Amino acid sequence: MAERRRKLWGWGYEDQQAPAAEVERAGRAAREHLGFGPAEVERPVCPEDLRLPAPRLEPPASLAAICRSDPYERASHAYGKAYRDLVRAFRGRFDHPPDVVAHPGDERDLEQLLEWCADTGAAAIPFGGGTSVVGGVEPRVPHQAVVTIDLKRLNRVLEVDPVSRAARIQAGATGPELEEQLKRHGLTLRHYPQSFELSTLGGWIATRAGGHFATLHTHIDDFVESVRAITPSGAWESRRLPASGAGPSPDRLLIGSEGILGVITEAWVRVQEPPAFKESAAVLFEGFEQGGAAVRALAQSRLFPSNCRLLDPGEAALTNAAPEGRALLVIGFEGPAPVGGPMARGLDLCRDHGGEPRERRGESEGAWREAFLRAPYLRDTLVAAGILAETFESAVTWDRFETFVREVRERTEAALPGEARVTCRLTHVYPDGAAPYFTVLSPARRRAELEQWDEVKEAASDAIAAAGGTITHHHAVGRDHRPWYDGQRPGAFAAALRAAKAAVDPAGILNPGVLIDP
Amino acid sequence: MAERRRKLWGWGYEDQQAPAAEVERAGRAAREHLGFGPAEVERPVCPEDLRLPAPRLEPPASLAAICRSDPYERASHAYGKAYRDLVRAFRGRFDHPPDVVAHPGDERDLEQLLEWCADTGAAAIPFGGGTSVVGGVEPRVPHQAVVTIDLKRLNRVLEVDPVSRAARIQAGATGPELEEQLKRHGLTLRHYPQSFELSTLGGWIATRAGGHFATLHTHIDDFVESVRAITPSGAWESRRLPASGAGPSPDRLLIGSEGILGVITEAWVRVQEPPAFKESAAVLFEGFEQGGAAVRALAQSRLFPSNCRLLDPGEAALTNAAPEGRALLVIGFEGPAPVGGPMARGLDLCRDHGGEPRERRGESEGAWREAFLRAPYLRDTLVAAGILAETFESAVTWDRFETFVREVRERTEAALPGEARVTCRLTHVYPDGAAPYFTVLSPARRRAELEQWDEVKEAASDAIAAAGGTITHHHAVGRDHRPWYDGQRPGAFAAALRAAKAAVDPAGILNPGVLIDP
Repeated sequence: MAERRRKLWGWGYEDQQAPAAEVERAGRAAREHLGFGPAEVERPVCPEDLRLPAPRLEPPASLAAICRSDPYERASHAYGKAYRDLVRAFRGRFDHPPDVVAHPGDERDLEQLLEWCADTGAAAIPFGGGTSVVGGVEPRVPHQAVVTIDLKRLNRVLEVDPVSRAARIQAGATGPELEEQLKRHGLTLRHYPQSFELSTLGGWIATRAGGHFATLHTHIDDFVESVRAITPSGAWESRRLPASGAGPSPDRLLIGSEGILGVITEAWVRVQEPPAFKESAAVLFEGFEQGGAAVRALAQSRLFPSNCRLLDPGEAALTNAAPEGRALLVIGFEGPAPVGGPMARGLDLCRDHGGEPRERRGESEGAWREAFLRAPYLRDTLVAAGILAETFESAVTWDRFETFVREVRERTEAALPGEARVTCRLTHVYPDGAAPYFTVLSPARRRAELEQWDEVKEAASDAIAAAGGTITHHHAVGRDHRPWYDGQRPGAFAAALRAAKAAVDPAGILNPGVLIDP
Repeated sequence: MAERRRKLWGWGYEDQQAPAAEVERAGRAAREHLGFGPAEVERPVCPEDLRLPAPRLEPPASLAAICRSDPYERASHAYGKAYRDLVRAFRGRFDHPPDVVAHPGDERDLEQLLEWCADTGAAAIPFGGGTSVVGGVEPRVPHQAVVTIDLKRLNRVLEVDPVSRAARIQAGATGPELEEQLKRHGLTLRHYPQSFELSTLGGWIATRAGGHFATLHTHIDDFVESVRAITPSGAWESRRLPASGAGPSPDRLLIGSEGILGVITEAWVRVQEPPAFKESAAVLFEGFEQGGAAVRALAQSRLFPSNCRLLDPGEAALTNAAPEGRALLVIGFEGPAPVGGPMARGLDLCRDHGGEPRERRGESEGAWREAFLRAPYLRDTLVAAGILAETFESAVTWDRFETFVREVRERTEAALPGEARVTCRLTHVYPDGAAPYFTVLSPARRRAELEQWDEVKEAASDAIAAAGGTITHHHAVGRDHRPWYDGQRPGAFAAALRAAKAAVDPAGILNPGVLIDP
C-alpha cells in the first residue's frame, strides 16, 4: 500500500488538498469577509519544480535502509507550520533543508543514528509531527550537515495498565493513532492541542503542549507518569510512579527540553475513561474585561471547568459566534457523574459578573472541537490569498491581565496596517492568571511576508516581555522565541541547562540553537 | 525579650518540655499500651554537659555579628528530627556539629556567607526548620569545616496580590508565621505537613514537602508560582507566571534541590481564601485492601477529596479510631460552595466497595489535624522509654499497590522483634497510584538504637525499591536515602544534575553529599 503523504506545504495530507479553483473561491471569500479587498489568489510551487542544494552527507550502509534524501522527503522536513514556514514552502524556498531524513524503527536504529551524527559532527533534529510554530524543527544551522530524525514509525501503544489507568505509548504516535489504540481498551488520553491530527506524543512532551482542559491539567506535563529518551550518552528513563519527592523531578527536566537533551522514545501517560457526562454553555459579556473577571472567579472557584474559553468581541464576531461587540465565554464541565451542579454554580458566577447565558449545548462541544481542529486547514487558503494569518500566546498573572492584553494588542496593531485584526481569546485559566491567545489577520505584503511578520512578531514579543508575560504558554521556544526566552529565564538556570546538555550530549549534536546556544 | 529556644533534642521549644516525672509516667504507659513490657525511662543529656569538638573556623569580622559558635547553637543545628537524630541528641552524641551557625538577615548577608565559604572551602548547609528526617541538614562531611545557614530571620510575608491570590514570602517563615501574616489578608496557603509548626517555606520547597490536600495539589510544588534563590554564582529567580511552556521549568529544577543548587530566599506562592464549606466522614472497611480499592475509585472519580486517609487496622487500633481489625478511611471535602454533593457521591463509592460510613463530622477535622501535628511531641517520650518509633513512606502505582504494601510490611517486620508493630496508612492518593506511609514501633535495642534502625531501614528501603516504589514521596532524599535514590533516578539525569550543580556552585560548597556526591 502506498504511504499516505503529508502535503509539502500547509496542513494535512496530499489527498486532502482542495482543487485550485476551490482555493481561489475560498480565498476571495475570506478576503471579502475580512474586508481586505480583492487580491490575486496565488498557487503554490509544484513539488516537481523543487530545486534543493545537494545533500552534504551520505548515510553509512548500515543506516541506508532507514535514511532518505529525495527532495520531497527533505523539503517536507525543512519547516514546521508557522506562517513563516507556510509562506516559504508555498514559494518553494527551501534554503536549508535537512541533508538526510532518517526513519528509525526502534531504539537501536536511533542509537546508531546518534552515534553516526556524533562521529560526523552532523546535527540531529528530532521530528514528531513537524507542527512546530517556533522554528523547533528547522535546520537553521547553515554550517552543519543535518540529519532529521522522523519518529513516525514509533507509533504504537505498547502497554495498557487499566488498574492504574496508564498506558505506555511510543513517542511517534499522533493524536488519532494513540486515541484509536486506547479506544480498544475503553480509555482516552484526552489531550487535544490544535495540532492533534498530526502532532505526536513525543512532540507534546518535548514542547509542553497545551491540551483539552482549560483548568487543572492544562499541559501534557500533567499526564506524564514517566518518560524514556535516548541521549547520546545513553538512555534516560524514569521509574513509573504516581508521584515522587526524590530530588528535582527528572521528568520535568526532559519535559520541555525540545530535543536538546535526548530523543524521547516513549512515555507512560495517565489515561482515563471517556467522561460519561458533559455539559457546555455559551455566556455573553459586554466586553473582554467583564468576561475576564468572570473567568477569574471561575478559575478561583475550585469548580474546575473542563472548557473555559473566552473570546473577545473581535474573535467572536469573526466566527459569528456572538452579536457584534460582545465577548463570548464557552464554558464546559465533564466527569464520571452528572455535572449539572457545577455548571449551575459556574453560570451563577458568570451572572454575578454581568454574563448572560445563552444556550445549554450538552453534546455540541464535539462540533466546537471539530471547528477548532479544522482551523489550520483554513490557514493554507489564507496564505494563498495574501492574508497574513498567525497566532501567538502567553500567560500572565491576573493582577497584570487587563494591562497586558491592552498593551500587547496595541503594540501589535501598531505594527500592522489599519485593516488588520488582532483578536484575543483565553485558552487556559489558572487561579493566579490566564493564558491569552492572540490571532493576527492582515493583508500580507506580498513577497515580503517574512519581513512583515518578523516586525509584527518582534513588536508583540517585546510587548509581552515588557508587560510581564511568558514568551510562550504552550507553543514552545524553538529558535524563533530565543531572544525573549533568554531574557525571561533565570540566568543561573540557563547556566545549569547548558551544563546539563553538555553532560548528556557532549558533542552538541542535538537540535542546536534551540533553547540554548551550541 | 529573650529568644524562645528550640529544644536541643526532640520536637518543639524548651518551654514545652514536660517535667521528667510526667515523661516517665507517659513513657511507661506507652510501653504498656504497645505491649512491650516495662523498661527504664531514661533522661536526656543535660545541655550543660555538652562537650563538642572546637570549631575549625572563625568568621571574618564582617560576618561575626551574624555568626555563632556556642555549644547550644552548634548542637541544635547538628541534626534533623529523624529517630536516629533524636537518639543521638538524647544521648549527647554530637560528633560532627557545624563549626559556625550563621543567621543572615538579608540576601546581602547570605551572599557574603557563600563567598566566605567558597574562599575557605567550607561547606554551607541551608537550615530552615531543621526538621529533616533524612539527614538533609546533618554536617556529615567530617573532613570539611561547616557553616550552617539558619534562615529563621527571613520570616516575613513581603507582598500579597489579592487579585491573583498569590503572596511573596521569605523562605525562613515557618508554617504558623506565614499563616498568621496571611490571615491578616483573609488568605491562607493551606499547606500542613506534619512538621508545620517548625518547618519553613524554603524547606518545603527545597524538599518537595507533602501538605494538606490528599488529592490534586499534594506537594508544595503545586503552589509555587516563582522562586528566588541565591547560588554561589548569583541569583536564580524565575518570573512570576501562572504557567509557562518556555523550556523545562526552571522552578522544577530548584524545587526538590535540597540546598545543593542554591539557598532559596523567597517565593511567590498561590494562596486562597479559607474554605467556606467543609465536611468529613469516617468509613470502616473489612481490611486495607478493600479500603484501598475504594480509595482508588475515589482517586479516579474526579471528585478530588481534600482528605482521603486510609489507616490499616493496626494503625486504626493504635489510636482507638476503629474497632479491632477494621481499616478506617477519613474522607473530607472542602470548597467555596457546599460540598454535600461530592461527599454523598464519595460515600456511595465507598459503599460500592464495602465501606460502612460511620459519622459525619463537619468541623471535627480540626481535631484530627491537631492530633496529627502533636505526634512528633509524643515521639520524644517514646525515645526516652526505649521505644523505636520511626516512619517511612513511598508512592507506587495501583497495579503494584497490594503487593507493594504486603512485601514492604513483611520485610520490615522480618527485621524487627516479634512484638514490633508495622502499620500503614495512605496519606496522598492519585488516579494512578497512592502514597503508603509506614509507622514502625518496636522495643529499642538500648545503646544500639542506630544499628538496629539502620538494619530495619535497609530492609524496608530494599523492599520499596524491589517492589517498584519511590524511596520517598515527601520526606526527601538527604543523605540517608542516597543508595536507593541513586538506584532509582535515571542515570542521564544524575549526570545532568551533577553538571548543573557544578555550573552554579563551582566550588561545590552547597550541602555536599545530599542528592549527589561532592
